[in-house]
Amino acid sequence: MTYLDRLRPESPQSVLRTYCLGLLTKEKVNMESFFNVKTSEEVFKIIDRFEPSGEETIPLEESLGRILNQDLVSPEDLPGFLRSTVDGYAVTARDTFGASESLPALLEVSGEVLMGNFPTEVISRGQAAKISTGGMLPQNTDGVVMVEYCNLIDETTLEVSRAISPMENVIQPGDDFRKGETVLKKGRRLLPHDLGVMAGLGWREVPVYTRPLIAIISTGDEIVTVDETPAPGQVRDINRYTLGAFCTQHGAKPLYMGLCPDEFGPMQYTVSRAVEEADSVWISGGSSVGTRDLTLEVFKELKDFQLLAHGISISPGKPTIIGQAGLKPVIGLPGHVASALVVAEVFLKRLIHRLSGLKNYLWDSRGMIRATLSRNIESANGREEYIRVTLLEKDNVLWAEPVFGKSGLISTLVRADGLIRVDINTEGLYQGQQVDVLPLDPIRGGNF
Amino acid sequence: MTYLDRLRPESPQSVLRTYCLGLLTKEKVNMESFFNVKTSEEVFKIIDRFEPSGEETIPLEESLGRILNQDLVSPEDLPGFLRSTVDGYAVTARDTFGASESLPALLEVSGEVLMGNFPTEVISRGQAAKISTGGMLPQNTDGVVMVEYCNLIDETTLEVSRAISPMENVIQPGDDFRKGETVLKKGRRLLPHDLGVMAGLGWREVPVYTRPLIAIISTGDEIVTVDETPAPGQVRDINRYTLGAFCTQHGAKPLYMGLCPDEFGPMQYTVSRAVEEADSVWISGGSSVGTRDLTLEVFKELKDFQLLAHGISISPGKPTIIGQAGLKPVIGLPGHVASALVVAEVFLKRLIHRLSGLKNYLWDSRGMIRATLSRNIESANGREEYIRVTLLEKDNVLWAEPVFGKSGLISTLVRADGLIRVDINTEGLYQGQQVDVLPLDPIRGGNF
Repeated sequence: MTYLDRLRPESPQSVLRTYCLGLLTKEKVNMESFFNVKTSEEVFKIIDRFEPSGEETIPLEESLGRILNQDLVSPEDLPGFLRSTVDGYAVTARDTFGASESLPALLEVSGEVLMGNFPTEVISRGQAAKISTGGMLPQNTDGVVMVEYCNLIDETTLEVSRAISPMENVIQPGDDFRKGETVLKKGRRLLPHDLGVMAGLGWREVPVYTRPLIAIISTGDEIVTVDETPAPGQVRDINRYTLGAFCTQHGAKPLYMGLCPDEFGPMQYTVSRAVEEADSVWISGGSSVGTRDLTLEVFKELKDFQLLAHGISISPGKPTIIGQAGLKPVIGLPGHVASALVVAEVFLKRLIHRLSGLKNYLWDSRGMIRATLSRNIESANGREEYIRVTLLEKDNVLWAEPVFGKSGLISTLVRADGLIRVDINTEGLYQGQQVDVLPLDPIRGGNF
Repeated sequence: MTYLDRLRPESPQSVLRTYCLGLLTKEKVNMESFFNVKTSEEVFKIIDRFEPSGEETIPLEESLGRILNQDLVSPEDLPGFLRSTVDGYAVTARDTFGASESLPALLEVSGEVLMGNFPTEVISRGQAAKISTGGMLPQNTDGVVMVEYCNLIDETTLEVSRAISPMENVIQPGDDFRKGETVLKKGRRLLPHDLGVMAGLGWREVPVYTRPLIAIISTGDEIVTVDETPAPGQVRDINRYTLGAFCTQHGAKPLYMGLCPDEFGPMQYTVSRAVEEADSVWISGGSSVGTRDLTLEVFKELKDFQLLAHGISISPGKPTIIGQAGLKPVIGLPGHVASALVVAEVFLKRLIHRLSGLKNYLWDSRGMIRATLSRNIESANGREEYIRVTLLEKDNVLWAEPVFGKSGLISTLVRADGLIRVDINTEGLYQGQQVDVLPLDPIRGGNF
């Protein structure tokens, strides 16, 4: 219900009054929009001001994909000892100098290094010890001759047919990491090999940022849960699942606040509870002007609320509201599910990364897929546009084929493999042009 | 311990015997290698023969990232009714024909559609009903005039200053999906919007392939657990964490079988138990020839074992063994952690995708990052090489800078952002050349 409706005019005077008030209200809204509609660049800056939501310590085996909250400094040298990188014989390199196939060096085999054992034999000049890859070099040796260049003449006599230089075929203590060296930096998203490094250094507990908890609220009098059979005029709650899965996909935890009717009281109750419980609140409402106004009214009642963006100059996704309640971002998303997901992909992924403490995340050509546009795209000037495209391979060319359809249709996203951005100052893109496609699934190759 | 060692020669005769046997053994090994060393293309074909490991039905909210095991066909039209995509007035389009600002059409407002309600009013010609975005159109109306082009003169009289065509500003039943239409195809990895579609259609249970269970075995007499303090000569178990996290990262479930000494008996026991319990077995051993031989000997004892590749002509990663026990892939990985991870990135990711039922996964330019090579790279002919690179932005150019270091060093991977492939028939790559970088983390932009 808009402000105008509430007046319910009953006399010619009140009709006039309504009309004037309408103009005034409209004017006010337009002025507000004028000052608060932001470009995507401005929104990125707004998002980048938010800080990580918390810290915790977790077991090593659960740390994949989590974000480090401090620099990790090596407490010891890794490896901790001189290790062979080949199978062969540990020697004093100088003993092999000048050795060749025609004039092999003769060494005495004085023992064998057993894997995992500290070699106690003292190897003197002219002696060699059998060693396997990964074995620890005995004292006084400084290199390993590969088994291919060794020939055992009898139990203790070895022919070496190639010279090695000191430290050849070995890893020295600290080659991987030196004691005191920064191994992994604060803000890093932990990958499998990072877990390996931490295991190698004996870290069983990892200091990370908490996963941001995102409260998700679906509003709308027409929405029913997935368990119900919608009556005519009703639809099932889709945003709960799309936005919830989106959070999970990017490392946040969704907190479902349930369905909420389009009424000030229940919405205010739900949103203020959500702000208390979660690190950020995302409310996706109907797309009607009345609902959007209502969302903003509800936000304005929050403690220490600040409106940061009332609309973004992008399409789809213009009627997005961004604010903060205290230090927590509160987001009003367009009701159309496809519009909401485009806004999530472009802006809220970045918001999750900020709240997660991830550093160095960049929206740029990295991670984009280069393709050739299959047809002209017209674009309205003054608005950045995000076009859904399907990727198709034909004649060894990867084509980006625009997916057409109203933004209210979720099928447009199901058919899309990614998004291309049409710049705010561009009139359009041309058939045959090279475009960068932001993949909706970095793992999936093409469409089905 | 190699075959040669076991003979322990004691007389000149036996020395000769050993020498000859050595030649024979070497010959045999070479012949075996000759027939079983595969190119990466051959290994891809071997991997593509494996089938998904199982099926299950899971709740909708847990289905993100899982792979559908059947086509999903829409049981109903989505949306199920004529919905407005704007705020305005539902009308019979024909009543607006010819309307303009100077000559508006006059309509009678006969009511308002409440969100989520079935509109019971019968709208006659010449009438209009107020409607919000997402509302259901009343009977006899076939379009919506946006509120911007409407002016309420009194409670029941509406001026419409713009004509609409039939079905303007509405979504028709089945516009998203028609009853009987295939909505999502078998083999699809489920994304957030796919969950939305399933929610919209009321699917609370989703038929998917099971996550493959991968048994991970670390062998080596020098390996201790992460909880222990390694004595000189010992190192902590790294592969358990890198390979386990790698499985998780790509949608499989790791099953840790623990540490196993480099002895036939314990290895055979552990591997055969692993084949029974898991869908695939990955054993990462020491890198010594003896250990590798031992792994193959153990595999050969498995029921219905078939050797598919004994070595891959890539670097690093050559000493990889691929076989199958019954229908289950069994993999012997290089002991060097960085080599093992390169093999995992290039081949085992694809294997996980096969076992997961994922269709259309392609190793190609999609998902790769284009960069400029910062220096020449020499490459040995006859082997495909995977070079670790760091990505750096300088003067608006994204540079791929090779990371040097022995393949046994895990720090080379920590410093790398991705891999570039040097083709088997290429002698090298040149500074300034454009290269495709396979990112180790598709989400992370650059290095720290």
